[in-house]
Amino acid sequence: MPEINSELANSSLKNIATLMESSLITHLPEPEGMEDQVIDAMRYALLSGGKRLRPFLVMTTSFLFSVKSVHALQVAAAVECVHTYSLIHDDLPAMDDDDMRRGKPSVHKKYDEATAILAGDALLTLAFEILSDKKTHPDANVRSELICTFARAIGAMGMVGGQMIDLKAENQSLSQSEITRMQHMKTGALIVFSCEAGAILANVNDERRSALKEYAQNIGLAFQVVDDLLDVEGKSEDIGKTVGKDIEAGKATLVSLMGIEPAREYGQELIEQATNSLQIFDEKADALRSLAAFVINRAH
Amino acid sequence: MPEINSELANSSLKNIATLMESSLITHLPEPEGMEDQVIDAMRYALLSGGKRLRPFLVMTTSFLFSVKSVHALQVAAAVECVHTYSLIHDDLPAMDDDDMRRGKPSVHKKYDEATAILAGDALLTLAFEILSDKKTHPDANVRSELICTFARAIGAMGMVGGQMIDLKAENQSLSQSEITRMQHMKTGALIVFSCEAGAILANVNDERRSALKEYAQNIGLAFQVVDDLLDVEGKSEDIGKTVGKDIEAGKATLVSLMGIEPAREYGQELIEQATNSLQIFDEKADALRSLAAFVINRAH
Repeated sequence: MPEINSELANSSLKNIATLMESSLITHLPEPEGMEDQVIDAMRYALLSGGKRLRPFLVMTTSFLFSVKSVHALQVAAAVECVHTYSLIHDDLPAMDDDDMRRGKPSVHKKYDEATAILAGDALLTLAFEILSDKKTHPDANVRSELICTFARAIGAMGMVGGQMIDLKAENQSLSQSEITRMQHMKTGALIVFSCEAGAILANVNDERRSALKEYAQNIGLAFQVVDDLLDVEGKSEDIGKTVGKDIEAGKATLVSLMGIEPAREYGQELIEQATNSLQIFDEKADALRSLAAFVINRAH
Repeated sequence: MPEINSELANSSLKNIATLMESSLITHLPEPEGMEDQVIDAMRYALLSGGKRLRPFLVMTTSFLFSVKSVHALQVAAAVECVHTYSLIHDDLPAMDDDDMRRGKPSVHKKYDEATAILAGDALLTLAFEILSDKKTHPDANVRSELICTFARAIGAMGMVGGQMIDLKAENQSLSQSEITRMQHMKTGALIVFSCEAGAILANVNDERRSALKEYAQNIGLAFQVVDDLLDVEGKSEDIGKTVGKDIEAGKATLVSLMGIEPAREYGQELIEQATNSLQIFDEKADALRSLAAFVINRAH
């Protein structure tokens, strides 16, 4: 592992999180009637904190290609809208049935189920509205490629498909490769998009874009392994949501299949692979290297 | 009213419905694992019939501007994906709680609630993937305008916001103007988009586009008035879903506020206004004129 600690990522994450909060507010529509309830719920979910990992990835990978930050911020907002919608829908009673999220009542507890479903739908739709806006990039070809790549990442063969597999896995045990595929779809695909968006914005389609996608795949899976470890070890204060749920649901995870120590080692390995993918970049990629250290530190 | 009967629209609707079924299948992804369940549910909902009113509007208004039918078909497919997602989510127990749709079990009854939520999410996402595809239009500026206009029509200030108001209306009575606004958002906005998509595809942004939007607003509201009349009169075979639900829910509709006969007259008036908007078009718009007659005939 290179000599980079997690401090850089930690402070960048905090800076970007602050930036995101003020940016996200500007994208919410102004209600003119009783639709205010769904917009309130969107705001509640969008502004309830969170690490803003995906916006961090969009911003720091865009920085590698000197993309204008106003463009990157638009993409980061779209990504965070979709991440937030996925959390709202995943928390619903019919899905993972989680009453708490980031230490606060989840949207269907704060409002009601119907409002939560609609707020998720509206956030997903808002993400595409943001990407199609000329503010995201003056070249419509770039906006169109962003939208197409994004839609594929989060649809039935990406994030939504991954959640479907995850739900079905409660009734049947998945193999290690099936779990890995599920994780790549459920959380990996959006993380990969977050890392390649900068390349798309800069019209870069060479080995640098591939390297970032590889970095993203490994970071994404490592993040999941760490989450599973935290779930097993019950550090609810670290993840801000109900813990021990996977065990309770009898759900197979990489940790339950491999055991705690081998899983921790596997996480470390993934982080090393992620860092190796960054070798073609100079010190401009240090924040990404630092994030790798940050991810694995959470598990210790 | 001009001397045009509803037969032209009736036969065009049937032709376009057949065309849509085969087109929609091609947009569904090929599952490679346990995500097949959500894709099955998408297919089940997409191919369970329906009038295909919105695809009809996209195709016939595109015809006015000599838009290539392959382009119009793409937009029609995207619109139908979104219409289908909205029905799936609206039918959920937390929303309108409808077990039947088009004479068949609704998606959450055929599968389960989680699958229904995810199938809706994936259809919404698929719609944007379709619009961003070069097959929809070679000019990315056109694709981008389609996406932006579409997203606004179906988001928190359009379709989703309208559904939010409709749900809240179960607990408080709306005025006639509030109901009209709700209907314009809930069903009108997508119908307006369906009618202006041809103009966007043809790069037309003059009084013809405005005329089509006006036609769409009036047809959309008339359609809703007729639906409410059918609901009151209990003709379940005509609408293929549970009837009398609005009354049961104590929900105010234009029909309950105005009374049956005045509502029928209002529907007739809206149809006449819709037809008047088409005066700037020649006989190429006859299928649209015929649709107006078709809509009001359902109420007799």
